Amino acid sequence: MSKAIEPKILPGFMELLPEEQIPFNNIMNIIKKNYELFGFSPLDTPAIELSEILLAKAGGETEKQIYRFNKGDNDLCLRFDLTVPLSRFVAMNQNELTFPFKRYQIGKVYRGERPQRGRFREFYQCDIDIIGNEILDLMYDAEIPSVIYKTFNDLGIEDFTICINNRKLLKGFFESLNVQDKSVDILRTVDKIAKITEEELIQELLDFGIEKSIVMQIISFVKIKENNQNIIKKLEDLNISNENFKIGLAELNSVLNGIKNLGVPDKNFKIDLTIARGLDYYTGTIYETILTNYPEIGSICSGGRYDDLASYYTDKKLPGVGVSIGLTRLFDQLNSRNFIQKNQKTIADILVIYMSENEKDYAFNFASSLRQNNIKTEIFMENVKFKNKLNYANKININFIAIIGEDEKNTNIITIKNMYSGEQFKLSINEVIAFLNTNINALEPIILK
Amino acid sequence: MSKAIEPKILPGFMELLPEEQIPFNNIMNIIKKNYELFGFSPLDTPAIELSEILLAKAGGETEKQIYRFNKGDNDLCLRFDLTVPLSRFVAMNQNELTFPFKRYQIGKVYRGERPQRGRFREFYQCDIDIIGNEILDLMYDAEIPSVIYKTFNDLGIEDFTICINNRKLLKGFFESLNVQDKSVDILRTVDKIAKITEEELIQELLDFGIEKSIVMQIISFVKIKENNQNIIKKLEDLNISNENFKIGLAELNSVLNGIKNLGVPDKNFKIDLTIARGLDYYTGTIYETILTNYPEIGSICSGGRYDDLASYYTDKKLPGVGVSIGLTRLFDQLNSRNFIQKNQKTIADILVIYMSENEKDYAFNFASSLRQNNIKTEIFMENVKFKNKLNYANKININFIAIIGEDEKNTNIITIKNMYSGEQFKLSINEVIAFLNTNINALEPIILK
Repeated sequence: MSKAIEPKILPGFMELLPEEQIPFNNIMNIIKKNYELFGFSPLDTPAIELSEILLAKAGGETEKQIYRFNKGDNDLCLRFDLTVPLSRFVAMNQNELTFPFKRYQIGKVYRGERPQRGRFREFYQCDIDIIGNEILDLMYDAEIPSVIYKTFNDLGIEDFTICINNRKLLKGFFESLNVQDKSVDILRTVDKIAKITEEELIQELLDFGIEKSIVMQIISFVKIKENNQNIIKKLEDLNISNENFKIGLAELNSVLNGIKNLGVPDKNFKIDLTIARGLDYYTGTIYETILTNYPEIGSICSGGRYDDLASYYTDKKLPGVGVSIGLTRLFDQLNSRNFIQKNQKTIADILVIYMSENEKDYAFNFASSLRQNNIKTEIFMENVKFKNKLNYANKININFIAIIGEDEKNTNIITIKNMYSGEQFKLSINEVIAFLNTNINALEPIILK
Repeated sequence: MSKAIEPKILPGFMELLPEEQIPFNNIMNIIKKNYELFGFSPLDTPAIELSEILLAKAGGETEKQIYRFNKGDNDLCLRFDLTVPLSRFVAMNQNELTFPFKRYQIGKVYRGERPQRGRFREFYQCDIDIIGNEILDLMYDAEIPSVIYKTFNDLGIEDFTICINNRKLLKGFFESLNVQDKSVDILRTVDKIAKITEEELIQELLDFGIEKSIVMQIISFVKIKENNQNIIKKLEDLNISNENFKIGLAELNSVLNGIKNLGVPDKNFKIDLTIARGLDYYTGTIYETILTNYPEIGSICSGGRYDDLASYYTDKKLPGVGVSIGLTRLFDQLNSRNFIQKNQKTIADILVIYMSENEKDYAFNFASSLRQNNIKTEIFMENVKFKNKLNYANKININFIAIIGEDEKNTNIITIKNMYSGEQFKLSINEVIAFLNTNINALEPIILK
């Protein structure tokens, strides 16, 4: 009796049951709310772009992963990030937009990677960027971490660190050592500092043909770990006269002061001279964010400053700064560690059960009143035995049910049952609304400690 | 000096500037909020499905429109609606789900149609469905219009009509006339009743080889226009003994009573015997929703009852009922008639401007307080002349700005300016919060009359 077509989805695509989709959406809503609180306006670009647009910049690994296809005469791609569509959008609408242009976009992107645990082919990115016209004040580089801070704080994540570095500083440092032609290799190696031993690190650098004394200077540079003020002091004490180094150091110092002034606590941001974030894109401040107690997850929110957003599509110079939260991966990592609160299998705050057809109208009225008061209300409408109605309430694991029988209808009250404690109350409709407003708003955290 | 790549998107893809995206999202949020208020839980299926899944049912026009492509060994498609993914999801997770399963999904779907005014290749559908396991009470057919009613009412659309019909009633009626083999043709013709003359209608039906007397009975049947009670009465008075007709009539009557009991005003729903909604899918109640003063827009929210959701993927019988709002098309239709309120080019409620670096910290603190109180706050951070700061405020068309200079800082107040009226107030931080909470919540409607 088996059916011809087995229902399945492709590996690498996250699809959640309601009890997981609900906290997933709660997390997304908190991100969205915070992005809007900082004045980032929504943008929603198509998931499909013309290949000539999307491939202007891509290359290597990214290009291989792209979903590309023809439809009619069009050579098309699914977007693999939200930054290229932003570049295209800003270039296309540069005369309609007001700069600095602050936008957020939360959307799915596509990469046809080989599926493996923790990697997704379809995943949400939650991006904010601020784009200037010719200029963009450095203070916006400080604003980005303040958005990240408030967002993760609101998510109930306490122990996270926003790591900050500056590409000009790195560039200048390598120039001062005369190893700027090897900076790609050096940065890629330094990026592994947490995963390999110091001996391995030294050996890798020596293997690039860098002199031992220079290698040791690089090592001692990236190993500078202090509070932010002391790192700045130590960098100043290096007395490097390279112009890029000096600009980078001044920028880093200003950005750190700005972050502090914007109210981010000291414990949530720090200079990290080992982060580099690729090489062809960012030109100034760079950010990574780690969960302090789970560094193995890697960066959950990264980005930086770039000098020229849309050079492929316009001659206008559009500097910008932004970050992206990889929501699908973050959720997966938290979920696999059992940090996601999974309670109800329904979004409803309360389930209304009526004993018989006689109480239907009374129950419907009651439900309408609850909804008018923004209480999410499901009515169970199947005409089955009371026991089976309760059974449904148990299965969906709902916190509160309202039971409406002859007595309730005749005396114009409602019986409310707390399904966890078993407590039962007889309340007027207004009392129910007050009771639920108090109890459903005392939400348990989405993300557990 | 022109760039190699002209920034553009494919025709048929809606992409909005902030001043349009903001009301678009507001509409989507109201739909989402109402779906959740009725206890529909969120679902988010992948945009990419395996072709064998998606094409199990498709055919004809739909199949030609599908975006289909290969990646590695996989034959893939972009979803063309949210119903087939729902079928696949429910069949796949039938042991994990609790029935009746109420879900909403708001997502983009893809159809490679020839682009034309008002038709989109990528568009949002906003679906709700209730899926039963073997059974699903008829009362859920009444709940669907109550969700539609509250949603459109909250959107500020007053004059809309939910049109209701029943497929069993139509089927039984055609059987009673012994023209059931021509019912597809008849319904397709009857569907055009508003667009063609009665003579043309009669002629088309005659051309199908239907006898004149039968044609006249069909015409007088579909022309029954009365209040709902009288239509039910007239249908009863036809004294048709066909079993399907009798069941359909009883269902229609029950559903109408349920809708009334669920609080939908009489003026917002009516029986319409001319609606049919295709033929191979729906089996009972069917819905269309029209804007009473703009019938030319066609149905903005349609759906119905089906006996068996997922017969391609499972042997379990899964009856359901649901509707879908075609949000992208609805927005486009309202926008092209200038019914969409387009004010600010920013999501922010207020823009904070500080006169000089000396007031920066004070301004940052103030902005943080506003955000803690859920007021969307943008800080203008470019170090330019005051005139240029005001210029930016004018360009983004923002309602309120806060001006912070030496005086404000020294006396611990804020100057608030209403950019429309030109009024200016000097307020304490707490007074600003109270003032904005009052004024930004007195929102103008999103959809104009």
